[in-house]
Amino acid sequence: MIIILKPQAGKADADEILARIESVGLKPLYMPGVERTVLGALGDERLLGRLHLQNHPAVERVDQILAPYKAVSREMHPTDSVVQIGSMRVGGPEIVVVGGPCAVESREAFGKTAAAVKAAGAHGLRGGAFKPRTSPYSFQGLGLEGLEILRDTGRELGLPVITEVVELGDVAAVEAHADAFQVGARNMQNFRLLTALGQAGKPVILKRGMAASVEDLLMAAEYIVSEGNRNVIFCERGIRTFEKGTRNTLDLSAVCQLKRLSHLPVVVDPSHGTGVREYVAPMAFAAIACGADGLLIEVHHEPKEALSDGAQSLYPDQFAALLEKLPAFAAATGRRMADPA
Amino acid sequence: MIIILKPQAGKADADEILARIESVGLKPLYMPGVERTVLGALGDERLLGRLHLQNHPAVERVDQILAPYKAVSREMHPTDSVVQIGSMRVGGPEIVVVGGPCAVESREAFGKTAAAVKAAGAHGLRGGAFKPRTSPYSFQGLGLEGLEILRDTGRELGLPVITEVVELGDVAAVEAHADAFQVGARNMQNFRLLTALGQAGKPVILKRGMAASVEDLLMAAEYIVSEGNRNVIFCERGIRTFEKGTRNTLDLSAVCQLKRLSHLPVVVDPSHGTGVREYVAPMAFAAIACGADGLLIEVHHEPKEALSDGAQSLYPDQFAALLEKLPAFAAATGRRMADPA
Amino acid sequence: MIIILKPQAGKADADEILARIESVGLKPLYMPGVERTVLGALGDERLLGRLHLQNHPAVERVDQILAPYKAVSREMHPTDSVVQIGSMRVGGPEIVVVGGPCAVESREAFGKTAAAVKAAGAHGLRGGAFKPRTSPYSFQGLGLEGLEILRDTGRELGLPVITEVVELGDVAAVEAHADAFQVGARNMQNFRLLTALGQAGKPVILKRGMAASVEDLLMAAEYIVSEGNRNVIFCERGIRTFEKGTRNTLDLSAVCQLKRLSHLPVVVDPSHGTGVREYVAPMAFAAIACGADGLLIEVHHEPKEALSDGAQSLYPDQFAALLEKLPAFAAATGRRMADPA
Amino acid sequence: MIIILKPQAGKADADEILARIESVGLKPLYMPGVERTVLGALGDERLLGRLHLQNHPAVERVDQILAPYKAVSREMHPTDSVVQIGSMRVGGPEIVVVGGPCAVESREAFGKTAAAVKAAGAHGLRGGAFKPRTSPYSFQGLGLEGLEILRDTGRELGLPVITEVVELGDVAAVEAHADAFQVGARNMQNFRLLTALGQAGKPVILKRGMAASVEDLLMAAEYIVSEGNRNVIFCERGIRTFEKGTRNTLDLSAVCQLKRLSHLPVVVDPSHGTGVREYVAPMAFAAIACGADGLLIEVHHEPKEALSDGAQSLYPDQFAALLEKLPAFAAATGRRMADPA
Repeated sequence: MIIILKPQAGKADADEILARIESVGLKPLYMPGVERTVLGALGDERLLGRLHLQNHPAVERVDQILAPYKAVSREMHPTDSVVQIGSMRVGGPEIVVVGGPCAVESREAFGKTAAAVKAAGAHGLRGGAFKPRTSPYSFQGLGLEGLEILRDTGRELGLPVITEVVELGDVAAVEAHADAFQVGARNMQNFRLLTALGQAGKPVILKRGMAASVEDLLMAAEYIVSEGNRNVIFCERGIRTFEKGTRNTLDLSAVCQLKRLSHLPVVVDPSHGTGVREYVAPMAFAAIACGADGLLIEVHHEPKEALSDGAQSLYPDQFAALLEKLPAFAAATGRRMADPA
Repeated sequence: MIIILKPQAGKADADEILARIESVGLKPLYMPGVERTVLGALGDERLLGRLHLQNHPAVERVDQILAPYKAVSREMHPTDSVVQIGSMRVGGPEIVVVGGPCAVESREAFGKTAAAVKAAGAHGLRGGAFKPRTSPYSFQGLGLEGLEILRDTGRELGLPVITEVVELGDVAAVEAHADAFQVGARNMQNFRLLTALGQAGKPVILKRGMAASVEDLLMAAEYIVSEGNRNVIFCERGIRTFEKGTRNTLDLSAVCQLKRLSHLPVVVDPSHGTGVREYVAPMAFAAIACGADGLLIEVHHEPKEALSDGAQSLYPDQFAALLEKLPAFAAATGRRMADPA
Repeated sequence: MIIILKPQAGKADADEILARIESVGLKPLYMPGVERTVLGALGDERLLGRLHLQNHPAVERVDQILAPYKAVSREMHPTDSVVQIGSMRVGGPEIVVVGGPCAVESREAFGKTAAAVKAAGAHGLRGGAFKPRTSPYSFQGLGLEGLEILRDTGRELGLPVITEVVELGDVAAVEAHADAFQVGARNMQNFRLLTALGQAGKPVILKRGMAASVEDLLMAAEYIVSEGNRNVIFCERGIRTFEKGTRNTLDLSAVCQLKRLSHLPVVVDPSHGTGVREYVAPMAFAAIACGADGLLIEVHHEPKEALSDGAQSLYPDQFAALLEKLPAFAAATGRRMADPA
Repeated sequence: MIIILKPQAGKADADEILARIESVGLKPLYMPGVERTVLGALGDERLLGRLHLQNHPAVERVDQILAPYKAVSREMHPTDSVVQIGSMRVGGPEIVVVGGPCAVESREAFGKTAAAVKAAGAHGLRGGAFKPRTSPYSFQGLGLEGLEILRDTGRELGLPVITEVVELGDVAAVEAHADAFQVGARNMQNFRLLTALGQAGKPVILKRGMAASVEDLLMAAEYIVSEGNRNVIFCERGIRTFEKGTRNTLDLSAVCQLKRLSHLPVVVDPSHGTGVREYVAPMAFAAIACGADGLLIEVHHEPKEALSDGAQSLYPDQFAALLEKLPAFAAATGRRMADPA
């Protein structure tokens, strides 16, 4: 850790801070300069967190040398982790696709979409039972009934199922019905929920928050992994920027960052990432091209009737066409598509 | 609602959509143009939400005419609402200040800061018992013990107390100990929590999310108010932008927007808004100058020792100096400071 | 154009505005609603620009139906335009790559990099003679001498050359030496420069500004094309967001937007887009995968010695490896790489 | 300067870099750690710029200790600078207001607005002769004729005049007609223009770019001051964010940052900063409250007829009301309004 003092800081300030660094067992360094005094602390700087040196009135700035995350870091675990969701392996040489509607709307409607997802050759099935909606007047999901429909449909088709958990009190129910939890963008920093998922027994797909940096996302995963659940998959789904021609700005370079900084798998959701049906396929291809391990794609058997996010949902034939084109992109990166479930 | 069709859309598409508009009891309008056909729907367009016209493949864009919120809107309730938190009235002609540390760290430490807050003439006391922290390795708050310290200290000093609630399961405990709930930026779109608070009996200070537009914030309040709890106070605390010289970018024009669009009170948190101790006072003055009804300010009896957010906490004498200068700004806007508690 | 009046607007306001709409030859529409009156204007709404209806105190909002650009729009010109830069065709079925250093630093250094660019099979050569630098104390480019080195080196190697023009007064000199102008992100809205380039005889590669929406970029191109120069190529190079793990946030969905909204070619610059050498190749693959027509890549024969942007420059062997992998991605999109120059 | 090496960097990399640090006369520091090696360079780190250490493949990150600007820095010049524009002093204890229309539209129209500006008690007059407009089909300004109208009107009324310069070739003409140059947001990083203004003889009001950090703005001013023109005034006018309820997001904490980091005066433009007439006055009050030295306000004698930016222009009576209220805010900050011109 590098501590830069304010111009007016004196020797006494420096001595006080150096003594505090030494008190936690780190090696202090004193570097007086012409315009600024710089202090250093060598050793595991995570120990320094409890000194809160940035609070000191003589301190201008504290620069961390080491990343604040550890368990999710590639430095601690240089080889790629593979996360197993039912029959689907995420993070290995094979690329996977999870499809399904934004929300489970009814047993019949979900069955139609799920059958189309299966027929197209996808590897997993998604559908929301608990929907976080901007407006209290919008459809909020079927809740427990939705979980049951999801579970039954997945079993019938032999597809692992993934669904969003929005609340601590629902963790047990979701775990009982789904093969993996999804944490939505709005809950990426719901730390109580993350802690509970760290103690749960199913994998977690962790979506990046709309205002979350890649480092914030890594720290959110650290909450889960540090509690014991190593089966975390990152999901890039777009950040909020000034650009309004797309619903969000899909930050594919986050895939590159995450693969470099962490050993955990990364999937991309181009449906929420763009919000525009026509852009889903090209951005899905781009995601695979830059190294993503898989895709989450919204599909609806009749988008015109969808109760949420219909404008970004693919028609079944568009989804099938997307899956037909993916093998060439996977091959171009030296990988291959997983076999259909 | 205005529905703009794609250039290739035909008369049959228009007719289908017009029939759907009519089916919910609204008056359809057909406006063929040279390059585009435009459709309209006159009446309460909130009824149209369930038609999901934006999902239709012939639709290019849907523009709303009316705001999607109703209960919080100034059009529905033209006069300012006043929210009472214990002895403190927020939103009337008098301006209030709530001070306190980021977190309740111990009975003794909190007591020292609280005494200084009271001595400076503040109107309310804040302190976190449940802390959402980016890192799992940071101090997470004292939990229930923190709530008790907060309640006892407030009673002793005669100050109403406000604390953050981060989880549905804590709503009852927080309601039992505090005079108002605070919803933090990371939970602004935790819709299950908002719904629960809409059914609770204490006021809610709702902080703007880091990536939330003013409209998103209004919709989040709509969740609470539409459940029956009309006592909501907005809090501007900065949004996330590319600028890194401050922790967040405090968007004071949001105060102007909120006062114009809603009848609910607005307070500002310049501590989180800037993250820099030296900028707290000038931005507090600016907040009052542009029409805020009150301030949330972080104070710590010894910021050097603070377990969280010390770099943005005022020293007690800085907080006292701030309160001394506020009456002149309040007067310049034609208002006055509330009497000390 | 749709004009939404304020709630308090009266019939007289509506009549006044309707009369103004009629005065420019458009068909006015009056749509009184329960909570708002909405007015419409059918016809070429670009005529309405001069009415400045958004300035009227009774107007709450004006929504455009048609895009504000025309000459660059795909609606006006449904087939893809191809722009020829020397021997290189951009926008057809073949994908092209332009490589070179950020700046021309000396004849010898540029020659080494250019030879490596040629040897790797690239189609064009880039290098800056006039460098816009954030600091006045940084290397500002060789100016005219740099243009001569660029021209000579390109001729020797048989590669078309592209260089940035930063100032109206340099347009003639750049046109005399280079095969295409590049307009940098900081000049995307230098409208006097754009107008001059619209009257020049060489193609223009127009980079997106750091805070420019896709619509702003389209409007900037409209400046050039409306003056008569139809040979414009868009370049996505990243926008400024809160994410700091990359220099900019490369917005690849802008490629999808631009290809849908305009007939002009689109290239991507993953070097400035990420600022990190390790991310250049995967983001280049992603750019091709989502439909870009070409790439601008920074290469330096010895990045350690580069006077600018070395941290994002590829080593010659990295550039060669990138070009070897591109044909598979081009093929996956149904295209092919252009033959080497 | 602190140089953090990559985990895989060896002793040889460190030695090579340390030797380069020593070669420019700085004191090298070697700090091997458990997980990373850190190097330091003590002395004037601006000398290190030419080493381009961030380009080195063994370097993970370079952290600057000193700010990259010098001439504009408060450390070099601890007392406030005052800039004189005709009879108006900016940056001293007295606060000034400059009013006028976005563009000079005709001699008659400008005369009406200018008379109202004068009557309200303002200290300076603004009006654009060269207008940078997003659309090539919008009014672009009167050019030289506009400059003459501006000059004549200012002289008649005894008000100093300010106008935007958008192009190197216009610097002489603007200098001949106006009392100060304005550099618009889109030209904040037009470095050739900044250099020319650094050699000119009139003060410069430098507006912050839409995507410019405060540090970028300080560096832009450094271009001007380092050429010899010390009379620079910063202008905060809003940055581009995801929030769309205002035209830009006015970042008033930038005023606090600029006043702390630099000795140069700071003014605020709440007209462009909000884009909404109703928000101009409250944000003007807030700007003064947080320490701004003055205001730029758009006024139009008949905003309904304005050829540009009418929706954010104040009516003359609104401008007069604003000026009547400012003295109380100035007094609250311990300052006073300058006497009317």
